[in-house]
Amino acid sequence: MKIGVFGGGQLAQMLALAGIPLGLRFVFFDPTPDGCAATLGQHIQADFDDWQQLKLFAKSVDLVTFEFENIPLSAIEFVSKYTRVYPEINTLNVKQDRLLEKQLFQRLGIATPKFIDIQSKNDIHDAAETLGFPFVIKTRFGGYDGKGQWVLKSEEQIAYTWSQIDGLPCIAEQWINFSREVSIIAVQNRNNERVFYDLAENGHNRGILHTTVNRPSDPMALEAQKIICKLLEELNYCGAIALELFECNGQLIANEFAPRVHNSGHWTIEGAATSQFENHLRAILNLPLGSTQHKGQYVMLNFISKIPELPHALSVPNSHFHNYTKQAKPGRKLGHLTVCADQHEDIDNLVFRLKNFFHF
Amino acid sequence: MKIGVFGGGQLAQMLALAGIPLGLRFVFFDPTPDGCAATLGQHIQADFDDWQQLKLFAKSVDLVTFEFENIPLSAIEFVSKYTRVYPEINTLNVKQDRLLEKQLFQRLGIATPKFIDIQSKNDIHDAAETLGFPFVIKTRFGGYDGKGQWVLKSEEQIAYTWSQIDGLPCIAEQWINFSREVSIIAVQNRNNERVFYDLAENGHNRGILHTTVNRPSDPMALEAQKIICKLLEELNYCGAIALELFECNGQLIANEFAPRVHNSGHWTIEGAATSQFENHLRAILNLPLGSTQHKGQYVMLNFISKIPELPHALSVPNSHFHNYTKQAKPGRKLGHLTVCADQHEDIDNLVFRLKNFFHF
Repeated sequence: MKIGVFGGGQLAQMLALAGIPLGLRFVFFDPTPDGCAATLGQHIQADFDDWQQLKLFAKSVDLVTFEFENIPLSAIEFVSKYTRVYPEINTLNVKQDRLLEKQLFQRLGIATPKFIDIQSKNDIHDAAETLGFPFVIKTRFGGYDGKGQWVLKSEEQIAYTWSQIDGLPCIAEQWINFSREVSIIAVQNRNNERVFYDLAENGHNRGILHTTVNRPSDPMALEAQKIICKLLEELNYCGAIALELFECNGQLIANEFAPRVHNSGHWTIEGAATSQFENHLRAILNLPLGSTQHKGQYVMLNFISKIPELPHALSVPNSHFHNYTKQAKPGRKLGHLTVCADQHEDIDNLVFRLKNFFHF
Repeated sequence: MKIGVFGGGQLAQMLALAGIPLGLRFVFFDPTPDGCAATLGQHIQADFDDWQQLKLFAKSVDLVTFEFENIPLSAIEFVSKYTRVYPEINTLNVKQDRLLEKQLFQRLGIATPKFIDIQSKNDIHDAAETLGFPFVIKTRFGGYDGKGQWVLKSEEQIAYTWSQIDGLPCIAEQWINFSREVSIIAVQNRNNERVFYDLAENGHNRGILHTTVNRPSDPMALEAQKIICKLLEELNYCGAIALELFECNGQLIANEFAPRVHNSGHWTIEGAATSQFENHLRAILNLPLGSTQHKGQYVMLNFISKIPELPHALSVPNSHFHNYTKQAKPGRKLGHLTVCADQHEDIDNLVFRLKNFFHF
């Protein structure tokens, strides 16, 4: 069985690492020459509008999935003529536009920060009045890891921000003073069998996910599951899906969802009975899903901009090191470390110790 | 960092699956065209006496290891001129000859079945007298999974066996009425840092390993560790090593060792904090070794001659399926399943249930 993956980065690599033991083989479609997944299968290096290569890709695999959501819908539509694509295009269509995503949350009764469609400089002034300072402007399309976002703190910043936006479609969002950010990952197969992982609690560094810990029996877990179920049902979803939520005064507020395996689920590779990657593959192949039971308390620490050498990384007891072998760039995720907490140590203390150990 | 591996079968594949997340890359040297590891790196398909390709192989990697012990020593010697090879040639030299292996056990005071060097038909008659019936004849070189072995039950079988031996150097071995077969896996790095996994208890089917369970806190574990330490020290060993032992009247009797990752350690992929594969790589790279702590009680079941379809295999709760994608042949290991036991179920009962589920 051959799986086609749009994208050849670390998520594609981790999908392949989970799938190869099952006997699956992989073809990666990625315009960049040096995707780290390429070593694990065939790499078709072509642009998303190279119809000939897209057709070749689609016809060489049994089904197609993706590691990131910003693939042109035209490419997905084209490939769908020759093979099945999961998650399906209806989900991507919503996900690619922050406005549609927020409207979906609203329609499903999922609490989300107040938002306003921004089409003119005047709309920003209106947003300031409605939302109050600070508030956030985000581009509707593209943007990740804090890119394409501006936090406005005063009237004076509106003109500058408007010039930065440079005509891109945007939305303004209410600023949420959250006590923590959590994410819930669910997986659903084509028979609507459904599993959830432990709630993950996330720490960020300059807008980029930095740490995740799994929170077994978190008091908000059931609420998060209820919310993500609304998405699973509405989208008739197939595969792994992550939903990022702010907790604020005991309430969960949806930030955004990701229709794919997610960085906050990397701890599941070693920390759960079945990883998010294997379960995503099981789901799109309509196989029985595996147990999501955690094996303990885990910390996942991202290496951003720089990555330690092997002897340094492996000197941490009970750790699993992942080096994506990517060229270092400021703000780029280069790898991660998953550490299983000793039962005698407080997990938050372990996070603190690890950050210090690696000088973050 | 590039690791060269002699052999491109499932053990090589599992080494690569453990090493790729660490940022390692792999080159496999394997004369056969269809090794399942090939998808995980570069495959040099050449014979073990193709000096040009061997040189190319050696010069393209940082160090070399192997997945099976029957590589011609001449190839290892040749490659050693250009790069380091672990485990080292002194170990392979002993391991490739059952007579030297047994003599090593004897020299180190490791209990082993009585053995006799067989050079003539008369030697077999002498062996019958000394060892009594039944006894075993094994070829000194080659042979695995019960191949190259004859169990002699009576005087009448000597002539036939002698004709089968066909001039191959052999030894005769005392028959051991063991109560169980266990194996111990140790890993030692170049700094002589050393770790051990849980004692594994093995069940066979027609001479081929069929099931393994890890036995946490087994009463014989310390004794097994003491024995394998003698080998580690004598051989100045580097890498993973497995020692198969018979338990007989409360005593451990060494059968054979394998200077490599071992089938009876497959449970460590999901069942131990660090797998035998990752620890073997850490050892040969002289990195700190990882914890060998088990995460529970596991059963590993080999699929021999035939292998179930994905939906069938994955319907087993808490299981991890490994399909080596090899052409099916009678007696060939095609894959395995590792199952974590529910804490309420007796592990031996789980083995029983699994064998029945897959109709073995």
